Amino acid sequence: MDQNLNVLFNPENIAVIGASNHPLKAGYTVIQNLNQIGYPKKVFPVTPSEKEILGRVCYEKLSDIEEKVELVVLGTPAKLIYHIMEDLSVRMQTKNDVKVIVCIAADYGETKTEEGIRRQACLMDTARKYGIRVVGPNCIGIIDNINRVDTTFVETLIPAEMRGKKGGISFISQSGAMAASILMMGASQPAPISMNKFISIGNMADVDFIDLLEYFEQDEDTKVIGMYLEGYPDGRKLIDTLARIVQKKPVVVLKVGRSSIGAQAANSHTGSLAGADAVYDAAFRQYGITRVYTIEEMMDTLQAFDAMQLPHGDRCFLLTQAGGPGIYCTDAFAEEKILNFPRIAEHTKERLRDMLPPMANICSPEGYADITAAATVEHHVESLRAVMEDDSVDSVILVTVIPTFLPGKELAEGFIKLLKEQGYENKKPVYMCIMAGNYVWECRKLLEEQGIRTFTTPVHCVTAAGHMAEYHNFLKRREGKKKYE
Amino acid sequence: MDQNLNVLFNPENIAVIGASNHPLKAGYTVIQNLNQIGYPKKVFPVTPSEKEILGRVCYEKLSDIEEKVELVVLGTPAKLIYHIMEDLSVRMQTKNDVKVIVCIAADYGETKTEEGIRRQACLMDTARKYGIRVVGPNCIGIIDNINRVDTTFVETLIPAEMRGKKGGISFISQSGAMAASILMMGASQPAPISMNKFISIGNMADVDFIDLLEYFEQDEDTKVIGMYLEGYPDGRKLIDTLARIVQKKPVVVLKVGRSSIGAQAANSHTGSLAGADAVYDAAFRQYGITRVYTIEEMMDTLQAFDAMQLPHGDRCFLLTQAGGPGIYCTDAFAEEKILNFPRIAEHTKERLRDMLPPMANICSPEGYADITAAATVEHHVESLRAVMEDDSVDSVILVTVIPTFLPGKELAEGFIKLLKEQGYENKKPVYMCIMAGNYVWECRKLLEEQGIRTFTTPVHCVTAAGHMAEYHNFLKRREGKKKYE
Repeated sequence: MDQNLNVLFNPENIAVIGASNHPLKAGYTVIQNLNQIGYPKKVFPVTPSEKEILGRVCYEKLSDIEEKVELVVLGTPAKLIYHIMEDLSVRMQTKNDVKVIVCIAADYGETKTEEGIRRQACLMDTARKYGIRVVGPNCIGIIDNINRVDTTFVETLIPAEMRGKKGGISFISQSGAMAASILMMGASQPAPISMNKFISIGNMADVDFIDLLEYFEQDEDTKVIGMYLEGYPDGRKLIDTLARIVQKKPVVVLKVGRSSIGAQAANSHTGSLAGADAVYDAAFRQYGITRVYTIEEMMDTLQAFDAMQLPHGDRCFLLTQAGGPGIYCTDAFAEEKILNFPRIAEHTKERLRDMLPPMANICSPEGYADITAAATVEHHVESLRAVMEDDSVDSVILVTVIPTFLPGKELAEGFIKLLKEQGYENKKPVYMCIMAGNYVWECRKLLEEQGIRTFTTPVHCVTAAGHMAEYHNFLKRREGKKKYE
Repeated sequence: MDQNLNVLFNPENIAVIGASNHPLKAGYTVIQNLNQIGYPKKVFPVTPSEKEILGRVCYEKLSDIEEKVELVVLGTPAKLIYHIMEDLSVRMQTKNDVKVIVCIAADYGETKTEEGIRRQACLMDTARKYGIRVVGPNCIGIIDNINRVDTTFVETLIPAEMRGKKGGISFISQSGAMAASILMMGASQPAPISMNKFISIGNMADVDFIDLLEYFEQDEDTKVIGMYLEGYPDGRKLIDTLARIVQKKPVVVLKVGRSSIGAQAANSHTGSLAGADAVYDAAFRQYGITRVYTIEEMMDTLQAFDAMQLPHGDRCFLLTQAGGPGIYCTDAFAEEKILNFPRIAEHTKERLRDMLPPMANICSPEGYADITAAATVEHHVESLRAVMEDDSVDSVILVTVIPTFLPGKELAEGFIKLLKEQGYENKKPVYMCIMAGNYVWECRKLLEEQGIRTFTTPVHCVTAAGHMAEYHNFLKRREGKKKYE
């Protein structure tokens, strides 16, 4: 494991060059984020124009800071890079403490101008001279929610007391805007998504996909890896790395530039090569790398892999309280082509018939039950229990549209009791869709705060369940193959 | 136009049989909804067990009400239907005023039991005897936001002062749960969606798809019709009706039972026939009926048709402030297969080059511009203006990920000024994606309150833009065809 990357995610003190007191400046938000997440060590704002920012004493130059600084966040306008690198040299010659630079400023190599390229060269030459690793430039920063580090300038509006929660998703984004969007969307879930580690890699002047994938491969806190990918110079090496990692943990990739026009736009953006998508796609399929096509699909899939154990097969029971949404779900189910409806045992059907309202549809078609809009909290919980106890079932999709007369809080508590307290979550995954909108927000929040992820519509459940089953099938096939190797 | 359906959406006084003081009962929520939406005429709760509900004086029986009652909401347990119909007869023999019954209770014909069928027969026999139209049973009710009628028991959590806004979407749902979900999702948008007319048709014992489609066809306030469809006994008649209506206004259909397994579930639910989907699908394509596949797609498409004029063609310019989301959008664009990227004039490119930051990507590929993350409010607004003024452009997708330093309120105001005050919305449609989450909620709310719809991700814009362009193309082809007829 690269020791400097360890420092990136857990640095001894952080200096923020280009810190600001202006709330609309990146150099303000970085300090605010470090305060809110509760970074436990010291933060040194560096700016000649302020005395104090958000309670932190400012320094005129990096070399003025007496204490140890392992991470430098670089947020000043790019044209100042020459001057800053000179000062960094002064510091390194005496203290030799800086291990990583996160350069959140733009106007470097990505401009493809002579001056931009020269700036990036200056940054990299100085960094290499002192063995400093560089993230960016032209990135939005990094987050580690376990070590409580946030060097991004993204305002997620997560309440301060909810910052820094632990999760198992680690994410790498090649686009700053996509990175920011994903952070902000995750923050707006009923229970905000707290990534384990999050990194926007920008121009990849130094730290790149391979470095980070290898780091996350070793990182025990990372349960699933997510990537937004436009392109990578050495596609073969990237695929080889991914193919090795997916044997240990799932990797979910949103790769753009699928179309020739998208590839052309990607080429303008990050210089990624056109025409490579078909090669990537074939490799993703062959090596069990989970490919997703939309941002929502990525969020759902990452959350499912993080919150649940893998299913032991692809037989997924669909339990619905609502006819229409249930049928809507079976269509998606059929089109997914990974999941199969199980044929549950007669005694399970009997159990369901005994406990449910007479109108309930038990297994027509097989693997599907409609517990009806008259279902109580107990009907919901006990029918879920019965289905989970059936050996033919590998996972369950549960859909409910909470009507006025069904108390959402009690429903959430019923599910929490079954899945968490009675340990049913250890039996098999349950993909819950609680519809819809603000009306069910509180119910979903209660569930999600207990680590039970909820999905916005039935189709989202099917997508996540399909990807989990597909990954299981891949591992199983590999296992079988291994025996003959 | 059926006069009784006029009464359904604009009744002279409403009686709610089975009204309740218990907040978890449907008979409470109906009264609450009528109060909140500001129904301007009289509401009479009917129940023997209460004196007053939410400020409304209760009546023991329907026949006790002295004043005129045109609409009766029936929310009592179904087993009481015989008794209620007797009392209705008493009333009709003297007052003869009731024109429509909306039966929101279940346990009628849909149970397929002898007793359920008998109850429905009792309801229908009495209604037919007196020429009363029936909506339901087994539905969630109806809403008319212009006449301020809401007989549903769905709690949307729309603040009372925001209820009853006018919109051009009228919606028919064959599933109560789907209807409720759509209402609740619509209510949870930055500016809550206010349907023009909304109806859950339940068992269609009387009022059915055809009645309502014909009503909405004539209804000048209905700009676009949405449908959730499981099946209809006379598919030919339904298609003929739709085919006639789409020549006047767009119809957007979410038809389930696409898969054989979905058809089987639909058959259990509403007795819809399997195997008919391919026939429906072919007819939808042939007759320009817009078919959607997900709830989100339906919401986006209905809102686009409601909020915007049709484009004059399928050439759609993609203007993005964010590289990654822009490329992501081009992929969706290419896969949509309806939209084309326009080749804008040299002088428009010149205008863009003159006003935008040097890093901006102007038209590589053609029809695509990345105004960069450094874009100011003025850059956003003026580049949109330039593109809209280009003759080769029929519509615009605008994607922006508001960074910390871009004030969202000013951005919204800039767009409102251009589109509303300066009338650019009359030139061509603009599909706006403001990413992401809670951080941009206020900006989106400001825009949506002015009638400028926003979309959650770039792919949602592409879907809506594609459907609008497709409908335009259909009308144009039809026009061309007409000339030779």
